[in-house]
Amino acid sequence: MIDTLEYTNGTLWIVDQTKLPTQLVQVELTSVEDCWDAIKQLKVRGAPAIGIAAAYGAYIGAKQIETKDLSNFLHEFKMVRDYLATSRPTAVNLFWALDRMGKCADENAHKPVGEILGALEKEAVQIHAEDEEVCRKIGNEGQAILKDGMTVLTHCNAGRLATAKYGTALAPIYLAQEKGLNIKVFADETRPLNQGSRLTTYELMDAGIDVTLITDSMAAMVMKQGSIDLVMVGTDRIAANGDVANKIGTYGLALLAKAHQIPFYVAGPISTIDLETATGEDIPIEERAGEEITHAFGLQTAPDQVKVYNPAFDITPNELVTGIITEKGILRPPYTESLNRLFEV
Amino acid sequence: MIDTLEYTNGTLWIVDQTKLPTQLVQVELTSVEDCWDAIKQLKVRGAPAIGIAAAYGAYIGAKQIETKDLSNFLHEFKMVRDYLATSRPTAVNLFWALDRMGKCADENAHKPVGEILGALEKEAVQIHAEDEEVCRKIGNEGQAILKDGMTVLTHCNAGRLATAKYGTALAPIYLAQEKGLNIKVFADETRPLNQGSRLTTYELMDAGIDVTLITDSMAAMVMKQGSIDLVMVGTDRIAANGDVANKIGTYGLALLAKAHQIPFYVAGPISTIDLETATGEDIPIEERAGEEITHAFGLQTAPDQVKVYNPAFDITPNELVTGIITEKGILRPPYTESLNRLFEV
Repeated sequence: MIDTLEYTNGTLWIVDQTKLPTQLVQVELTSVEDCWDAIKQLKVRGAPAIGIAAAYGAYIGAKQIETKDLSNFLHEFKMVRDYLATSRPTAVNLFWALDRMGKCADENAHKPVGEILGALEKEAVQIHAEDEEVCRKIGNEGQAILKDGMTVLTHCNAGRLATAKYGTALAPIYLAQEKGLNIKVFADETRPLNQGSRLTTYELMDAGIDVTLITDSMAAMVMKQGSIDLVMVGTDRIAANGDVANKIGTYGLALLAKAHQIPFYVAGPISTIDLETATGEDIPIEERAGEEITHAFGLQTAPDQVKVYNPAFDITPNELVTGIITEKGILRPPYTESLNRLFEV
Repeated sequence: MIDTLEYTNGTLWIVDQTKLPTQLVQVELTSVEDCWDAIKQLKVRGAPAIGIAAAYGAYIGAKQIETKDLSNFLHEFKMVRDYLATSRPTAVNLFWALDRMGKCADENAHKPVGEILGALEKEAVQIHAEDEEVCRKIGNEGQAILKDGMTVLTHCNAGRLATAKYGTALAPIYLAQEKGLNIKVFADETRPLNQGSRLTTYELMDAGIDVTLITDSMAAMVMKQGSIDLVMVGTDRIAANGDVANKIGTYGLALLAKAHQIPFYVAGPISTIDLETATGEDIPIEERAGEEITHAFGLQTAPDQVKVYNPAFDITPNELVTGIITEKGILRPPYTESLNRLFEV
């Protein structure tokens, strides 16, 4: 399978995920506006992939800056980052990647603009490469909770399409497959934008992993039937107390898992953890256009003028989270302590 | 608004609900095959409306029988009913209505075939008329749990489109509106066939009732935000112990309501209660084609050849049901007793 993001010879290509699964289309992003647009319109999505795209976007934006005056350059580069930061509000990896690009510029601020650009390119490539490594480590750490023959329920897409490679929630499944284990997956459709039916099934089938598609509303029944051993989802931001922002529907799924005594795991890179955000209540939740529900993919399924509420994410309180799988191991409650310890090291 | 089913001058018209909300189309059902097909393909749906359509279908099928020999006629009429009974397995109203039509034929078995046909037509019209009256009574009984300013979450469509008039789960809301109360509604989209977004929003907007559309996966978040005072759903079959079969997603919703301490009510006519079925485990659950999820309404949202699980209904165990609203009052737990008492009278 093609990588979600490809950076070669100075050009950035992404798989346009709004076209999957019926078309596999790569598009080139040549300007910072292209990058903003690709993130906003979910052509590139998934918290880690958004971070990588934003890092490249910042570099591409820096290249577009015309001035060679250092102070003007740094000022305009700040504006580039601020602009990219407005693309989506919830995934903290976006801000994390833009901060890293900002720090990189600051650290090289004594050099001529040309050299700063070189350093920024290197930093973006580094963020991209690190993500693959981080996802592989998440996959390895996740082996501790997987056993041969298990069935995992997942929501949205936290797979290789959402990251540099392997994914977060799907990484343990890919790594288990490499080891020869047989793990089955149930994929929630994930309305309104069907990342589960369009993307998760697509990449798992591509990898030859047994996946069954259900609607979001079937999760409870499938759990009750005893078909699910484990729920594993990705995350867009983890607050200091372990509250988790993720795709709308995750909170309900966590409650259903608890009702059926099924472990509920969240997988994400440490860059998704935001100790500046005290609790889930402090995480801004993106509300998207009602047309995503009423006219998804151009098909009208609700009356004109109907009132719609369309939050893109929800908050799962820490008490519903069995463990958080990171590249540095699986965190356990109480999360305020385990998350803090992670950053002390 | 046009009635879901209209029987005038010997012809049966239904609103083709697969075309809503973008087209309001009435189609005439002229043969028993038309009726079977309309039920199977969900042109007419909702347990009470299925019962009414089956009753008319049985009469239309009886008219198609060519023999005038009484014993042959009764035999062929039994085959007509058996055929209609294969259209959908879960809603018990289908079998209830066909039984009534069968009993009507038996009671008139001493008359010539022409008179039996007259009796069957009268019985179908009677079943239709009774449903409107029953729904109005359900609406009245439901007033006991509604207060001005409340917001009700509902799933699928158990409104006037699913019945002769008023609906079951929506009847209390319509009756409250007639009394001048202000009741707001949140409507789950109800995947995969979007009865919530296509039908419930449509008929509530048509009636001027404030309705907000959400995806099924948003119910938990909306409950947590404190927006929901009550959950009210319809039902396709109630077992002797109070277990409830209803549209897939209902069971999960009931668990979420419990987790948020929100009352969960089921509304249905007594014809939906099936004392012959001991528990929910004995209710056959219809599994429908995977294309309903992967290619809903002709739009492909999943890869070709993906494995799909598509149960159309689920079972909500009686312990999650706060009350069952019938035309003879609101039943309370323990349901084995309250349901039995209902049939003793």
